[in-house]
Formats: sequence, C-alpha cells, structure tokens
Amino acid sequence: MGNVFAPAPRSPWPKREERAREREVKRDAVLRTAVALFNENGVRATSLADVAKALNVTKPTIYHYFSNKDEILFECVRRGVESIRDAAIVVEKRGGTGLERLQAHMRNYALVMMNDFGMCVTRTADHELSHESRARFRALKRETDVLMRRVVEEGMQDGSIAPGDPRLITFTLAGALNWIARWYDPNGPMTPEEIAAGCVATLIQGIAPRRPEQ
Amino acid sequence: MGNVFAPAPRSPWPKREERAREREVKRDAVLRTAVALFNENGVRATSLADVAKALNVTKPTIYHYFSNKDEILFECVRRGVESIRDAAIVVEKRGGTGLERLQAHMRNYALVMMNDFGMCVTRTADHELSHESRARFRALKRETDVLMRRVVEEGMQDGSIAPGDPRLITFTLAGALNWIARWYDPNGPMTPEEIAAGCVATLIQGIAPRRPEQ
Repeated sequence: MGNVFAPAPRSPWPKREERAREREVKRDAVLRTAVALFNENGVRATSLADVAKALNVTKPTIYHYFSNKDEILFECVRRGVESIRDAAIVVEKRGGTGLERLQAHMRNYALVMMNDFGMCVTRTADHELSHESRARFRALKRETDVLMRRVVEEGMQDGSIAPGDPRLITFTLAGALNWIARWYDPNGPMTPEEIAAGCVATLIQGIAPRRPEQ
Repeated sequence: MGNVFAPAPRSPWPKREERAREREVKRDAVLRTAVALFNENGVRATSLADVAKALNVTKPTIYHYFSNKDEILFECVRRGVESIRDAAIVVEKRGGTGLERLQAHMRNYALVMMNDFGMCVTRTADHELSHESRARFRALKRETDVLMRRVVEEGMQDGSIAPGDPRLITFTLAGALNWIARWYDPNGPMTPEEIAAGCVATLIQGIAPRRPEQ
C-alpha cells in the first residue's frame, strides 16, 4: 500500500524565491558595473548604454531593474552612505571610551571610502542627482554626520577627546576621510588597511609631537 | 616765450593701457560670474548663455574673452590652485620651524577654500575638464601637494612635526582642508577665520587630549 506515484519531475521553471534571488543578483551586477563606470569616467559621461554594453545586455534589460540613470546613481550613493552608517552602528554597540569608538568608526569609514560605492559618495556632487534624489542623499549624509558627531561629543564628555567644537571637529575628521576617495589608487604603495590606520592615527594624535608618557 | 599752445583736448578714445586694463576687468568679471554659477549649479548645468545673461551681455561678448566653457573652467581652477601656491610660497620665505610654517600654510589654504575660486578646485572633478586642461590641472595640483609635503618633511627633520609617512600625512591634512569647500556655508555660524583656525588646530593637536605642560 506504498505510494505508487513516482515523484513529480523537477520543474524547469525557477521557484518564486529562486527568481527573486536571481533578480537580486542581476540588479546588483548593474549597480556594481555602473558605479565603477561613474567613478572612472564621471556620471555625465556614463550612459545606460555603456552600462548595458559592459554587462553584455541591451539597454531595455537595464530598464527591467531601474527606471533611469538617476535611480541607479542614487542607489549607488545610498549603498555607500549605508555602509558608513552600518559600520558606525556596529561600533556604537560595542562600548569603550568615546575616543576608542571614534577610532574604530573612522577606520571603518576610511575603508568604505576605498570601495566603489563609498568612493561614489565623495565623488558625486549634489547637482548630479535629480531634485528628489538630492534631498534623500543629503538626508542620508546628514545622518552619518550626526552619528559621528555624537561619538565626538561622548568622547568630550568622558574626557577621552579634547574639548572643542564638535561640529567643526567632525567636519574636519570626515573631510580627511572623505578625501581618501579622491586620491586612493588601488595600484599605489599602501594597502587600504595601512591607509586607514595611518590616516586615523594622524587625526587622533595630530602632527605636533606628543611628549612621551612618564 | 611761454608755451602758446593750449593743451590738446583729451581724446574720447581710451589709451592703449586703459584698453588693456578695461579688458582685464571684463575678463575678470566673466570668471567671477562663471565660478559662482559653477559652484552653485555645477559645471554641466551652467551654459555660456547663463554666464552672459548674468552679466547683461550676449554670448558672442563672452567669446571675445574666452573660446569655450572648458577654457573658463580651467582659468577658474587655475586661479584657485595658484592662490594656494602663492600663499604657500609667501609662508615658505618667512622662516620658523616646519610646524610653524605648516600652520600658516594650512591656515591660508583653508581660507582659499572658502573663496569661489578655491571652492571650484575642490568641486571640479577631473573628468569635467577637457583632456588637455585636465593634464594641466593635475600638474598644478601636484605642485601644491609637493609644496605642502616639503614643509611636512622639513618639520619632521627639525623635530617640530612627529615622525610619519609624509605622503599619507599630507593627503590627510589637505583632504580635511579641501573638504571645507564642500561644507562651508557663508551664512553659517562661524567666520572663515574661525573655521580656518579651528580646523588647523584640530589637525595639529589631534583630538586625543594632550597632557598639560609641566
């Protein structure tokens, strides 16, 4: 009285979740290709046809995932800003003095600036985005500024960071980190880890010599 | 036997040097108007017709001074970079330790970043310039990098600057200064002098507290 039916043959059509996964992989490939072209040649000089060509597809295929270049650019900068924010939130949770957390935060921030999406955040001027995307981009960037400023303030409160104007200090630190995206050369003499460590140490210690501990 | 001739009436046509001076004033007005529009709306969104309109002239008048938008943009960034360079050279001559000279150098650099031409240097991506202008722009920027790096090295040699990698340190300092051009708001709460002083102090002292002098 066992089941006399053979198991149903596997459908040659993907399951719903496989389709969703496949779509995600392809969407991701569009973004990765686009961001590399934006960073290399600038947003203006990069057309959707260029992105399609680099992926061996036609332009209508790109429109299956994004409605226009502005949406792609916004997604690229959003990923970059969110990487910075996520790295900051992880650090926030782990405790330590304000300075210790800021050090870890800045290190992660510097590393993001050396990947394509982070680089795109620094290289994209507000006016390259549509009016609507620009407002969202600014709001996201403001959020990461606020996260960093909060750690600076906490460090000033616990005495691990020297007193000063938290807004100006945060802009100064973030500026040095953002600028890495403008000069970093993957073929240069230093690894991203070395650059992040050296840049953060300079910002924390300053360039004036410190008197040795006694 | 005095001179019986009355002085010649003043010619209603300007003298050669007056003409040259007038041309220079007008050329300068084109650059000042263009750089403000570039900074506000981006290079791409600014046409020569926009520049002409802001000056109450027609586009052909602009062509009397510049052959195209690329030439105007290059002149704008050239002025910015040359202001940085000139300020560095003045400091270079006045003596003092490496750190003292670097401090004055960075202060001047920060101030340039808050005027329109300096701002344009930071905001202009290489790919916004023509191939030829880009190469000249890069060469000019390299020159200012080298000037700053030299002062850093001299400070390390005379012991006024803590030892480290001069290249990475120069990029870190210049990045924080360049970034001022991205966040500075003339309507904000601080004057350019206050911003320059605060930013430079942070870079020199670092954010970790220093032990008091004994």
